[in-house]
Formats: sequence, C-alpha cells, structure tokens
Amino acid sequence: MSSAPTSAASVVAAAPTAALDTASVLKQLHALIGDDLIATNRIIVEQLNAQVELIPTLGSHLINSGGKRLRPILTLLTARMFGYQGSGHALLAAVVEFIHTATLLHDDVVDKSERRRGKLTANAIWGSKAPVLVGDFLFSRSFQMLVAYGDLKVLQIMADACAVISEGEVLQLVVSNDLATSEEQYLQVVSRKTATLFAAAARLGAVVSGRSAEEELALGNYGEYLGRAFQVIDDALDYASSNETLGKSVGDDFQEGKITLPVIHAYLHANEEERRFWSQCLEEKNYHEGDLQRAIQLIHERGSLAYTMAVAERLAQQAKEALHPFPPSQEKEALLLLADFSVSRSF
Amino acid sequence: MSSAPTSAASVVAAAPTAALDTASVLKQLHALIGDDLIATNRIIVEQLNAQVELIPTLGSHLINSGGKRLRPILTLLTARMFGYQGSGHALLAAVVEFIHTATLLHDDVVDKSERRRGKLTANAIWGSKAPVLVGDFLFSRSFQMLVAYGDLKVLQIMADACAVISEGEVLQLVVSNDLATSEEQYLQVVSRKTATLFAAAARLGAVVSGRSAEEELALGNYGEYLGRAFQVIDDALDYASSNETLGKSVGDDFQEGKITLPVIHAYLHANEEERRFWSQCLEEKNYHEGDLQRAIQLIHERGSLAYTMAVAERLAQQAKEALHPFPPSQEKEALLLLADFSVSRSF
Repeated sequence: MSSAPTSAASVVAAAPTAALDTASVLKQLHALIGDDLIATNRIIVEQLNAQVELIPTLGSHLINSGGKRLRPILTLLTARMFGYQGSGHALLAAVVEFIHTATLLHDDVVDKSERRRGKLTANAIWGSKAPVLVGDFLFSRSFQMLVAYGDLKVLQIMADACAVISEGEVLQLVVSNDLATSEEQYLQVVSRKTATLFAAAARLGAVVSGRSAEEELALGNYGEYLGRAFQVIDDALDYASSNETLGKSVGDDFQEGKITLPVIHAYLHANEEERRFWSQCLEEKNYHEGDLQRAIQLIHERGSLAYTMAVAERLAQQAKEALHPFPPSQEKEALLLLADFSVSRSF
Repeated sequence: MSSAPTSAASVVAAAPTAALDTASVLKQLHALIGDDLIATNRIIVEQLNAQVELIPTLGSHLINSGGKRLRPILTLLTARMFGYQGSGHALLAAVVEFIHTATLLHDDVVDKSERRRGKLTANAIWGSKAPVLVGDFLFSRSFQMLVAYGDLKVLQIMADACAVISEGEVLQLVVSNDLATSEEQYLQVVSRKTATLFAAAARLGAVVSGRSAEEELALGNYGEYLGRAFQVIDDALDYASSNETLGKSVGDDFQEGKITLPVIHAYLHANEEERRFWSQCLEEKNYHEGDLQRAIQLIHERGSLAYTMAVAERLAQQAKEALHPFPPSQEKEALLLLADFSVSRSF
C-alpha cells in the first residue's frame, strides 16, 4: 500500500466490497421508501414548530443541511420489510432524527466544531448557548411525540437509547487525550454513542409492525453492527478524506484529542520517537504546524487506515449476517446495500 | 424607603408576610415528609449510578450541594395531602429533582456561572463539556424512570414540562440584552423556565393519588403561582442579597444581561441619563467598575425592588388561593407556608 494519503473509498475499492456512489444508493432507497421519507420530513417540519422562533430556525438549519437521514431510513425500511401499512413508522423515524439532531447540536458545542455537512455549525452561527437549549427542546419534543404515539415499549427503547448515548458521550470525553485507551474501550464508545441509535431505529421497524422478539433482536443486532461500521469509517475518514468531500474539517478528531482506531493502531505500532510525537500532540495538546500532516503520514505508514477499514468491513459483514433470518425482499436488499455503503462511502 | 442596599428579607419584613427562617421552614416540612425525602434521596443516589464514573461524581456534586429540594417536596406534600400510601411519589419526586438538576447544569454552562449554592459550579470544576453531557444523561435517566413507572399521563406531564422549560430558556436567551422586554414577556420567561416544573411537581401528587381533574388543576395552579413568586424573588435577590447568603454571585444577572423585573421597572422609571446607563451596560455590554453598584442604587432609588417584591407577594397570594378547594390538613398548612416562604426567604 502506498504511504501517501489516499481516500477511504479508494482503500475500500481494493477490499471485497466495491465502492458505492452515495447518490445512487440514496436513489435506490428513495425508490422504495420515498413517500415515507416525505411523510417523515413533513412531521419533522410540523414538530419543529415552537412559539419561540429561534427554535425552528436553528433546528432546521441542521436538519435541512443535507444529512443522509440514515437512522430514520432504518426505521422506515425495516417497517416496510414487514409490510407495515400504518403511519406510525414515519412518526418514529422523525423522533429518531430529532434525537440524532439533538446529540449533534450538543456534540458540536462540546467539540467547538466549526463545520458539519459542509455548512457552518449552529454554534458557529448562534454561539454555544442556543444550541444547548434547542438540543434540550428536541429531546423533550421527541418524548412528547413518543407519548402521543403511546406505546410504552417504544418509549422504553428510546429512553434507554438516550441514556446509553449520553453515557457513551461522557465515556468518550473521559478517554480523550489518553493514548492508553484500548481498542476495546474505543469500540465501547462507538457502540454507545453511535450504534445504539442505529440499533434502536432498526428495532422500531419490528416493534411498530408487532413482530416477534427474535425478529426485533435480529434487527437490533443489524443496527448495532451497522452503526459501529459507520462510526469506524467516520473515524477513518477524519484522517483520509478531503475537507470538500467530508463536509466537516479533516483532522477535527486529531485537534480535539479524540483517540480513535487509526490512532490507537498507529500508536501501538509506533517506535519510540513516534510515540513521543503522538503523546505530545494528543496528551500534552502541544500542536505545531504540520503535525496533522505528520499524523496522517504515520497512520498510512503503519497501515493503520487499512487496519481500521478491515475492522469496519468485518462489522459490516456482521450486520449483513444478522439479516439471515429474513426472507428475500427488496427492503432486505436495501438493508444489505446500506451495510456495504457504510464502509465504502467517501463522506 | 432608604436608598441604601437592603436585603430582600428585610424589605419583605415590612410587608404583610413576616420573614421566615429557612431552617425552621425546612424543619416543619421534614417533620411531615422526612421519611419520604429520605426515600427520594435514596432513589436519587441509586439512579445516578452509571457505568461511567464521571456521571455520578459530577451529578452528585450538584445534587448534594445543599439545594432545598423544593420541587420534589411539592410532589411529596401534595401526595401526602391526599393520604397517598404507595412509594411512587418518591420515584416521581426523584425524577423532578433530576430534571431540575439537568436544567441547572445546562444553565450554568450557558451562563458560564462560577458559583451556585455557595459552591463552584460543575462547569467551573470540570469545564463545560461534561455538564452538557451529564445533563443529557439526567434527562434520559428521568425518562427511563418514568417509563418504569409506566403511567402515560405522568409521562405526558413531564415531557410537556421539559419542552416548555427549554422553550422558556430559549426565550430568555432571545430577550436578553434587550431593554424593550416588557413585564409580560418577562413573566412568560419566568412561567416557562421555572413555574412549569413547580406546577408539574405539584400536579404529580394528585395524579399519583388518582384524584380528580379539578384537584389536579388546582394544584397545577398552586405550583405555577408558587414557581413564579419564587423566580421573581430570585431575580430580586440578585440585586438585594449578599454573596454569602445568596450562594451564587450577586449581580450575575446584571453581568449576563438578563432583563429581570427590577431592571424593567427601573428602566421604565429612569430619566434620560439613567436610560443611557442601563443601555450601555445591558445592551452594549460595556461594563465599568462600579456599574453593578450604580445599578443596585438606581433599583433602590426607583422603588424597583419594592415593586418586584409586591409582584411576588401577589403571586404567592394567588398560590395560596389556589389551595381553597382543599380541606384543612397539616400538608395544606405546609403548602401555604411554602408560599409565604417563597417570598420571605433571603436565599
């Protein structure tokens, strides 16, 4: 493998899964659940409404910033796979997107991020105060919507998910700037802060359709592995992508001292001088110009990006295997496609 | 009235209600619901538990910092007034305290506050990141507890309350640094950000006891007026108390550009030169040494503190009137006492 920086997508092109074009994947999904997505978006707009104008203004800035709607798509696709004919899945999909948006607003404040999805973050525009409070509003509105839906089981899934997500975020904070973080601890953070909501979103499709506990569990496993794969790739892209395709700023994780898999691997295989470099940047937070470039170079030289991609590939494979119990259908094909997409995307 | 700064308690001493000593009020309450408060505190400690150690550490720093537990006391007292014999009221009281604590954590981050209840704030100790995320955990854990309790009506009351509170917080942000804020807008902020949780806490006592909609409404009104009175006094104390008795820093609201009732009244009755002073400090955020002292002096000269106290007195009176439907009882006496206490406290 070349030691020059390369895109995550091109690394994956050499792997078993062929690179997938985001636009074509989204097009295939829209053909299946386009109407459901329109219904979900309508509910999102309605429920963003509040007497204080800043709430819909700030909320829709992020919600309409071109996110891929992956999490609500999971709820819609899994419900449709079971032939669900009601309208509850669109409501639950909107809730999932609200909770995701609330966590992004708080994340960006906590990380002082400047850009997301190629646009300025809410905190970059409105300062850090409003996004904290609007995030709280979105959490609260989500629970109002769930209460209106009225199923205690759904409420439990989402309340549990929110608690685990916030635990994961705190854990991420605790292990930041600590190069002793193990791959296992890293995967715990990934599971809690990201995969938990993917798992809940996928389970909801089974719950809303009144399916068996086994089917719900299988979809929960699918979502869990998919979410892990998705986040591991996200962490790879932070050292592999370009600012233009990534939407956020390359090297954000490095600047914030986040100990992600590429760094854990590179540090594990580093010589003494390289360890001093990593420690100085990530533990002592003593950055110099060119340090990000050096970090990217070391990550390539040590094969850490390839290792990270391989971990993500394995997780995506586990996601696909979790779908074994379900008979063939267009929706199942789309869920399998999403697993491939999670590791082959370039943003 | 003297133009020299005086304590809110001493202003009230001249009003119809005699000044009440906090310790003696709390002692009377503990005699009635001491066991319930112990049960509530036990649930709080249990439910603060999380796999990530920083969560209970940070959470208990604030929860055990000597807060008055006024909101959970409302739930416990109202439940006991109806002769409730179960244990659900203690769980709901713990939820109310968690939600209150979550809002305080986020408030202190948003306001960059240094002190609360005489101690350093969580953000002063751990920085602003952890309190945002631990606040999210407390919100989530509250909903997990409510789901475990399993009453959709209770869930609706609390989800609605959380949404209104966050709207109130955003509204407060929107009108900050704006001297055109009316007394009506100010009271809207007070109602949403503070009184809503008091109202919900008081209603829960009726709901948990299975009482009529009329009784629930009456207690909701009591909590609403009590919460407004409490917040209006809080805003008076920020210009009237001493740092030692207040626990937080006197003048915090002034530094943060919060447009509270003392300021609204003083600005309304200001001469042209005084208006320029207020505008320079609160709208242009151009502070000089001695400005807080000048603000306190103007507030006294214009009778704005006395006006604010009178508004709070009226609200406390309305709280007491809302209790008319209920027959005499020790618990009702305690609720009436709380209304008096809300306006006569010195911290």
